[in-house]
Amino acid sequence: MPIGLPEVPALTPVRGVQLGTADAGLSKAAKDDLALIKCAASTIGSAAFTRNRFCAAPVLVARQHLEWNMPRALIINSGNANAGTGFKGRQDAARVCRMVADGLDLEEESVLPFSTGVIGARLPVGNIERALPECIAALSENGWLGAARAIMTTDVVPKGSSRRFDLGDTAVTLTGIAKGSGMIHPNMATMLAFIATDAVVSKPLLDDLLQRAVRRSFNRITVDGDTSTNDACVLLATGCADMAPIEQDSDPRCAELKDNLDRLCLELAQALVRDGEGATKFVTIQVTRAANESDARELAFAVAHSPLVKTALFASDPNWGRILAVVGRARIDQLDIDKVNISINDVLVVENGEPAAVYTEDAGQTAMAAEDIVIQIGLGAGETDYSVWTSDLSYDYVKINAEYRS
Amino acid sequence: MPIGLPEVPALTPVRGVQLGTADAGLSKAAKDDLALIKCAASTIGSAAFTRNRFCAAPVLVARQHLEWNMPRALIINSGNANAGTGFKGRQDAARVCRMVADGLDLEEESVLPFSTGVIGARLPVGNIERALPECIAALSENGWLGAARAIMTTDVVPKGSSRRFDLGDTAVTLTGIAKGSGMIHPNMATMLAFIATDAVVSKPLLDDLLQRAVRRSFNRITVDGDTSTNDACVLLATGCADMAPIEQDSDPRCAELKDNLDRLCLELAQALVRDGEGATKFVTIQVTRAANESDARELAFAVAHSPLVKTALFASDPNWGRILAVVGRARIDQLDIDKVNISINDVLVVENGEPAAVYTEDAGQTAMAAEDIVIQIGLGAGETDYSVWTSDLSYDYVKINAEYRS
Repeated sequence: MPIGLPEVPALTPVRGVQLGTADAGLSKAAKDDLALIKCAASTIGSAAFTRNRFCAAPVLVARQHLEWNMPRALIINSGNANAGTGFKGRQDAARVCRMVADGLDLEEESVLPFSTGVIGARLPVGNIERALPECIAALSENGWLGAARAIMTTDVVPKGSSRRFDLGDTAVTLTGIAKGSGMIHPNMATMLAFIATDAVVSKPLLDDLLQRAVRRSFNRITVDGDTSTNDACVLLATGCADMAPIEQDSDPRCAELKDNLDRLCLELAQALVRDGEGATKFVTIQVTRAANESDARELAFAVAHSPLVKTALFASDPNWGRILAVVGRARIDQLDIDKVNISINDVLVVENGEPAAVYTEDAGQTAMAAEDIVIQIGLGAGETDYSVWTSDLSYDYVKINAEYRS
Repeated sequence: MPIGLPEVPALTPVRGVQLGTADAGLSKAAKDDLALIKCAASTIGSAAFTRNRFCAAPVLVARQHLEWNMPRALIINSGNANAGTGFKGRQDAARVCRMVADGLDLEEESVLPFSTGVIGARLPVGNIERALPECIAALSENGWLGAARAIMTTDVVPKGSSRRFDLGDTAVTLTGIAKGSGMIHPNMATMLAFIATDAVVSKPLLDDLLQRAVRRSFNRITVDGDTSTNDACVLLATGCADMAPIEQDSDPRCAELKDNLDRLCLELAQALVRDGEGATKFVTIQVTRAANESDARELAFAVAHSPLVKTALFASDPNWGRILAVVGRARIDQLDIDKVNISINDVLVVENGEPAAVYTEDAGQTAMAAEDIVIQIGLGAGETDYSVWTSDLSYDYVKINAEYRS
């Protein structure tokens, strides 16, 4: 079960956004696997896509459409990633967009497609065609939770969050849903997030806000450039709130929107880790006092990806030597081993590169028994801090990923 | 059980080398865990050590001793790595060398210490002191197999090999033993290898031969610079054969020695993978036609380390989309996705970046059912080929590493 993840609270509708779902028979689970998100004509959109060079067909199509038009509809399926499907896959993604455009009377280029699931199999377009009318009929402002369920693959629980806040005198809403599996080694897992607000924001500012928020949240659970074939995060601003547009970063309302968006993205990103495949621990790797961000990030991810550290976490074993060994092998520029401090949930285990005199195995075991673990690694080399979030490596991780297609 | 690994054949004694073992009670298993290797006064030695910056105490001491003196004795314990033990750990390693030197009437600096096992616990020097006389009494030219067993940790079988060949008119022997566990993510596992020959070779040439052989074998199962705290590979040349010394690379006998050493090291390295923790598959990742060695190596290791590829291998699931996704995210300079070909045991799955027209799921499943799998990835970007060897990710890997200290 997800680690310390409360049930999704009620998701607040966003003016100008309607969602509908249907079961297109794409995933083995008996659940809806097709979600349609329709938004008002005043909507502007921004998106961050995977940097994987073998990006999936829907990513290629969505990126292209977003360059040409503002989005009016998003069509998302789980159960099939439409990745590694070549030219035919791109045709399939375009066909799905055309169907949605026909059904909603839109331009094909204002529909963005998204897929998640098995790689390398053709998308069953016929299934989507048959289920689409049901999606359209179901469109409702209250469809957020249903959509959060429909985009799930190996996720155990749906993930979403809402925030209400004021921009100047106007109350606005920010609601987002996300799915993500395999967060143990997130670069390969598909992460999808769809976030909408009724705030009125200029397109350049919306782009900046999304890139910033993603860098501080979803990119901290995935290595820069090391993303899956299908990752995408979309931010829609429907412009339905009654307010003057925010166009400048210096607008005091911008700071408020930025802060709320950062918090929402971080909450969704951490929820993905908490629901990671087979995860039994939620682990924060906190590198402090690194010489620069590159060193800090490289080390944090090296620890987060180490199977030996992750299996020790699963076993609640304070085998801190494995952490030390990762510090020693990480590809970082400035490492003075005599300045390295390591603590696990505030229990100091390594001090100035040597076993801490105060450390006892009992204290270590108590620290590792917790579900939420913070591993802090101080380098004493500079002023840069960087955190990433990960989970442990359990039997269930192997089971889920070995049996994924069978 | 190890994959396709025959029982260790008889290991041929090397003139000038004696080995003895004892049970010092350092490892939980009821087996000898202390090995002593003594060599003739005419011996020269060369070694390759871990590049981990937190290298273990015995590595620091062995490297220092080897700079000062030629080796006359090697003392190796399993069960405790003497790593992450700080200044006291270095004192412990030096004390063990002094004991061996006293017992064999040698200089302390001609003794090299090696340790493998749990990180972060003090070395029980008293245990070693008590067991050492038994090791010395047991010294014998026929002690190779016993030593191969004594250095094992989570290894299932002892690993060793011998070769007999002529250098000019003189028949010489090359015998080596190795231990290695956790080859699923080899950078963190300790690998130890001890190889000896009675050939007469100059010290500079011996250094070159060892570095070359390690680069082509042990470094292909571990990422350059991504080694454990304790890794070491030692090559001893006792000089006991009746021959003129080989001093130049141009000496025709050098090619013969080089070839035999390369083959022996490759055999030992592959045996480590075949006995990898929880391994059920022996996997060769073969990158061909890369633009340069850096690209080829980076991609080969990215595939070899991908938990999603490794769990698919464990499940014998031809989920080639996961391989494609790693190619897309690997940090390589020259990737033209339209030129990428991928095959699994000669079954073409991706051709020119698209799903191969000839591919069938049946053919893929037959290929993945084998115990020995070759994943070939052609980049069509240049002339560089590079192979690495790895294994799959199984339930047992998690079990072994989660329970290692309990």
